[in-house]
Amino acid sequence: MLHIVESQQFTVPIIKELFERADTMKEIVARGGTRDYEGKIMSSLFYKPSTRTRFSFEAAMYRLGGKVLTTEHALDFSSEIVGEKLEDTIRIISTYCDAIVLRHYKEGGAKRAAAISNVPIINAGDGSGGQHPTQALLDLYTIDHECGAIDGLAVAFIGALDYGRTVRSLTYLLSKFEDVKIYFVAPDELQIKSDILEHLDEKGIGYQLLNSAASIIGKVDVIYQTRIERDKLYNRHIDLEQYNINIDVIRKMKEKSIIMHPLPRSVEISHEVDSDHRAAYFRQTANGLYVRMALLAMLFDSNK
Amino acid sequence: MLHIVESQQFTVPIIKELFERADTMKEIVARGGTRDYEGKIMSSLFYKPSTRTRFSFEAAMYRLGGKVLTTEHALDFSSEIVGEKLEDTIRIISTYCDAIVLRHYKEGGAKRAAAISNVPIINAGDGSGGQHPTQALLDLYTIDHECGAIDGLAVAFIGALDYGRTVRSLTYLLSKFEDVKIYFVAPDELQIKSDILEHLDEKGIGYQLLNSAASIIGKVDVIYQTRIERDKLYNRHIDLEQYNINIDVIRKMKEKSIIMHPLPRSVEISHEVDSDHRAAYFRQTANGLYVRMALLAMLFDSNK
Amino acid sequence: MLHIVESQQFTVPIIKELFERADTMKEIVARGGTRDYEGKIMSSLFYKPSTRTRFSFEAAMYRLGGKVLTTEHALDFSSEIVGEKLEDTIRIISTYCDAIVLRHYKEGGAKRAAAISNVPIINAGDGSGGQHPTQALLDLYTIDHECGAIDGLAVAFIGALDYGRTVRSLTYLLSKFEDVKIYFVAPDELQIKSDILEHLDEKGIGYQLLNSAASIIGKVDVIYQTRIERDKLYNRHIDLEQYNINIDVIRKMKEKSIIMHPLPRSVEISHEVDSDHRAAYFRQTANGLYVRMALLAMLFDSNK
Repeated sequence: MLHIVESQQFTVPIIKELFERADTMKEIVARGGTRDYEGKIMSSLFYKPSTRTRFSFEAAMYRLGGKVLTTEHALDFSSEIVGEKLEDTIRIISTYCDAIVLRHYKEGGAKRAAAISNVPIINAGDGSGGQHPTQALLDLYTIDHECGAIDGLAVAFIGALDYGRTVRSLTYLLSKFEDVKIYFVAPDELQIKSDILEHLDEKGIGYQLLNSAASIIGKVDVIYQTRIERDKLYNRHIDLEQYNINIDVIRKMKEKSIIMHPLPRSVEISHEVDSDHRAAYFRQTANGLYVRMALLAMLFDSNK
Repeated sequence: MLHIVESQQFTVPIIKELFERADTMKEIVARGGTRDYEGKIMSSLFYKPSTRTRFSFEAAMYRLGGKVLTTEHALDFSSEIVGEKLEDTIRIISTYCDAIVLRHYKEGGAKRAAAISNVPIINAGDGSGGQHPTQALLDLYTIDHECGAIDGLAVAFIGALDYGRTVRSLTYLLSKFEDVKIYFVAPDELQIKSDILEHLDEKGIGYQLLNSAASIIGKVDVIYQTRIERDKLYNRHIDLEQYNINIDVIRKMKEKSIIMHPLPRSVEISHEVDSDHRAAYFRQTANGLYVRMALLAMLFDSNK
Repeated sequence: MLHIVESQQFTVPIIKELFERADTMKEIVARGGTRDYEGKIMSSLFYKPSTRTRFSFEAAMYRLGGKVLTTEHALDFSSEIVGEKLEDTIRIISTYCDAIVLRHYKEGGAKRAAAISNVPIINAGDGSGGQHPTQALLDLYTIDHECGAIDGLAVAFIGALDYGRTVRSLTYLLSKFEDVKIYFVAPDELQIKSDILEHLDEKGIGYQLLNSAASIIGKVDVIYQTRIERDKLYNRHIDLEQYNINIDVIRKMKEKSIIMHPLPRSVEISHEVDSDHRAAYFRQTANGLYVRMALLAMLFDSNK
């Protein structure tokens, strides 16, 4: 493993190794971290600001004992403004550090960076329709831990799915497992794009497109809720209520099911849901730390 | 002590313990810092930028051996822009670190954060009329060191006092000591608010409201000067000269008195004053490091 | 050595000592860094953002084992906006750390800071016509390593030279060596300023002003290309092609010559040139790390 660019690159054996390492990282964090990667430097190169994602990676690096170079808004604060190419920036920054976490504003940014870099590139989101593979891996890790397995699960994605980077990335991962069933719940105009459905057809994964979650709330194991912009629905005369998770919705869910969300949330999950044991989104966030620690450690170890 | 939200929470015994620890921290810094808190991570979450306050906390964390996650302008650079609630942000960020230093743009922000966080919250200023308790503690520490005690002192606050976060916080602390006398020197329109005076009445602390410092310059132990915006006075036809500390003013002060200022200063203290031994404001700033180290250490120790 | 303000302050013996230390730093980096400066804190105080220069200094500090306080846009994010003087800012920040790396927007900013600071100030660029001495030192180190010596070399500076901070700083350094010959290649309107030429006259260094590099391409040892803003030339009806390094230009260069560039580049060096062994600009960037490590170590050692 040289770079982390997209979900597709992960095989089931590598995913299993990653999850085992993440379990170990959880124990390490409980003991106050390690010093094993003390000499390592990670660069956070965020062309679009995201304090949460950036802090998650940087905390992971710190818990491993390493150090962090950081820019929270490279587009404003760098030579991008004088027209430097991403490739030049990466060649230069890769001489200062041992790994680069890149959030780029264009789809394909991470792939371009990986082609030129002599240190590992980690895609922390590229473009609005691109990928966010480390989010997908922490999502999958959460599902595995909360549900005990991934094979055989029924997962519902709800929200504006057309440009959902996390939904796209997680679907690629789910398609590697057995007997998974996926429901895409969205207004027609905001449904998941056809390239994802073609991928599922190829893999023989069952799925269904729905406009409402009502019929499947009681039978899915995982509800993966995503952000819905109020304006987007309002402009299309779509009732937001249909896509909102509140206390009434959660009462219809299976006792052993979970609700996930990549966060930040807006109005699509009511705060009254937070205290229910099925609300897994804050546990999901916490898992991000362990999964990112494991990914960084695997990259450093395989680039030794 | 779980969180640091407002000055009122500090009792005299805790203040004394804090000051002793700050003295120890001064020695530790002179020796080049410690590694005692090496595994700890502090997050600087500043919704309003303040390089000086942020650096002061982060230097404190580094001198303790710890690590720092930082955002200098969270309002622009975070999911605040998509409408995430402060409470959600805190729940997420608290999974990455061991303490959060929060400067929020709304009064009460720190209290809301403390109610939800499972790591210590330190209020680094909330709203323009809110509190800034760590500034008040370093101010009090400076007074104690420079004057040898706090009981029995006469303190004059000069400037625009109506929205003075630091003046408010420090007054709460002074009111816990014996025989303190306070002068509030400001144009009527910018005087200290009545809630503070009511608090002093309750506590039986003597105070006086003045429009000019002339009558008390020669008898106070501490002049605490605050920023005066030239425009604010000009628009009200108030003469700035009355509230300015220059070489003529300082010559009338007692030999053993001091001038303090939370900094940054604008025109209200002339630069010619800097070399006088009574100019304590840069020593005050330096004390901030020791007091913040002591506060962080106390929080980490009591949350073990 | 107390501060690094301008190129002129460096004597040849100090330059040689610096280069030897930089060689040692290269070995230290290859071994994963050192912990020798673990207790030290460096502040990056950038009033103008520059991710590359900032990361270079911060990586240097990390490889030395130290810690970093950082602001990437102090002008927006600090009390500069309320009118604090640079001198006050420096007095305050110098109480938090062991060295300050300053990029200021005004020529002379670093000198003013050095006059007041009790920790070392490192000028990381001041004003558009000021200096950038650490860039000049890493440039000189690169020339020394690539060409085997500095005495006797012929160096051509190409581009918009009138406000070229790096060209100015490097020329001062080159003038300290023997038998150096310098060509300044630029349109008349953008030529190097007369103060630099007067300095070379005083030092007895040979130089020539040219509008085109055609006549000297085949005989120089170093081409130091600088950024050319397309608009600047276009408005003056100057043909950009004359100042562009492409594959045809490089074929006319000596086998043992090199092309340098402070980066970021715009259109003035074609990307097809990158794979030629004479393209030294990415090696130049990498050298920045070793030279800055050496400078920081020398400052810390001489301020012990």
